[in-house]
Amino acid sequence: MKAITSRDNPLYKRLKALAASTHQQKKGGQALLEGFHLASAYLDVAGQPETCVVTEGALRHDEAQAIVARLEAERVVVLPDTLFGQLSSVVHGVGMLLVVRKLAASLPERVAVTCVVLDGVQDAGNVGSILRSAAAAGVKQVFCAPGTAYAWSSKVLRSGMGAHFLLDIHEDIDAATLIERLAVPAAITDSHGPQALYDCDLTGPIAWVFGNEGAGVSAPWRAAVEHRLTIPQPGGMESLNVAAAAAICLFEQCRQQRAAR
Amino acid sequence: MKAITSRDNPLYKRLKALAASTHQQKKGGQALLEGFHLASAYLDVAGQPETCVVTEGALRHDEAQAIVARLEAERVVVLPDTLFGQLSSVVHGVGMLLVVRKLAASLPERVAVTCVVLDGVQDAGNVGSILRSAAAAGVKQVFCAPGTAYAWSSKVLRSGMGAHFLLDIHEDIDAATLIERLAVPAAITDSHGPQALYDCDLTGPIAWVFGNEGAGVSAPWRAAVEHRLTIPQPGGMESLNVAAAAAICLFEQCRQQRAAR
Repeated sequence: MKAITSRDNPLYKRLKALAASTHQQKKGGQALLEGFHLASAYLDVAGQPETCVVTEGALRHDEAQAIVARLEAERVVVLPDTLFGQLSSVVHGVGMLLVVRKLAASLPERVAVTCVVLDGVQDAGNVGSILRSAAAAGVKQVFCAPGTAYAWSSKVLRSGMGAHFLLDIHEDIDAATLIERLAVPAAITDSHGPQALYDCDLTGPIAWVFGNEGAGVSAPWRAAVEHRLTIPQPGGMESLNVAAAAAICLFEQCRQQRAAR
Repeated sequence: MKAITSRDNPLYKRLKALAASTHQQKKGGQALLEGFHLASAYLDVAGQPETCVVTEGALRHDEAQAIVARLEAERVVVLPDTLFGQLSSVVHGVGMLLVVRKLAASLPERVAVTCVVLDGVQDAGNVGSILRSAAAAGVKQVFCAPGTAYAWSSKVLRSGMGAHFLLDIHEDIDAATLIERLAVPAAITDSHGPQALYDCDLTGPIAWVFGNEGAGVSAPWRAAVEHRLTIPQPGGMESLNVAAAAAICLFEQCRQQRAAR
């Protein structure tokens, strides 16, 4: 283990710059996983991180010790609490984060299973919530179009609650590339759609396309979908948050598949 | 209209202090409604705001002019863009906000309709998303227990997208007060619940209770509910974001009610 005590330490300065910039994390295909839950989930599926940063205080806890025991010693950096605070994106963190390479999956030649397409969803909380719902619904493949929030940013990771480790997340996949590989019908929600969600047979695989919070689904996807589905809304509102709409769609599919068994 | 050009103006200083403190907004029962959509929704249901703050730039736009035309002139304060920026909670705002009293509804003696109880939901984005889903599902009554995020904070208002003006939102309602007025069965989601959501008859009114992101539903509510419902989750995750779970429950109820008609 290395101990860093000075804020002028070159490694600390690199970590601080990385923590402050989602852009830099995305460019390098890196992610900061904060907390015991995300750290141990990563170790389970991916092996050693680039670096584990831990506070002196955290090291006194069993959970932190259990994680550190799984790591090659030279990857562990111990910091005082004050230095750690500037790397952390949570208010009352546990004092541990891993710097890792994001898990990259190779793009399938043919997509013949239920999947989720994030077509420019820009709010990190929405992206995290949709990833979490997708993993809970048993979806494995997620495709993010350019313009979607970086799926491995700290905020998406936090709201994803470990979903990242159950999914293959493909980023920067443009519509044309995916549409030619797609062997299942695509569906969007559309408040003027011709069919109610509940009246559509969802027992087979579907590519669910969820669009930008303001602009909705982009033109190429809009042209490619088979199903434009309305979620009937008895109240006066005429729209739902995109993550709420995604949860309703994915679990309506689960309900139908369960009923069909 | 009043023009303020100095950051030492006493009214500007009061506005800045209010904008910076959700605590102070809550204490005074006040809210800051930013943007044309929220502003005109407020005017439709509630009449004159305390103050309308608008930038010189915004005043050149038709939408801002239409709103200002509905206001008593002495309530309108015009600011340069630079001063407005410090009152705004959005990055690229339109340069208009209303300072208003929150809409308060009197607590019903008896609750005999479908309603939503927020039992310590602490994330403002989650509260806003649930309010939006509730309004879309046709729910009218929402009860927030102590510990729930202030429903009229800027962030909840922003993610509620106008739902506040379709709902009666009762805040700081403790479990005992509401339970004795409740004339409909209460339901919670519980991953170890004995019944699947889809197997429960939801065609009648239900009090949906959604708990804190970490701790879940509190003991008094847990003891009072009639239905503990599982949302079957075929994937490896064992939980959903609370706003996603709320959307699934509320719209499963809508689906059943639609099918029963």
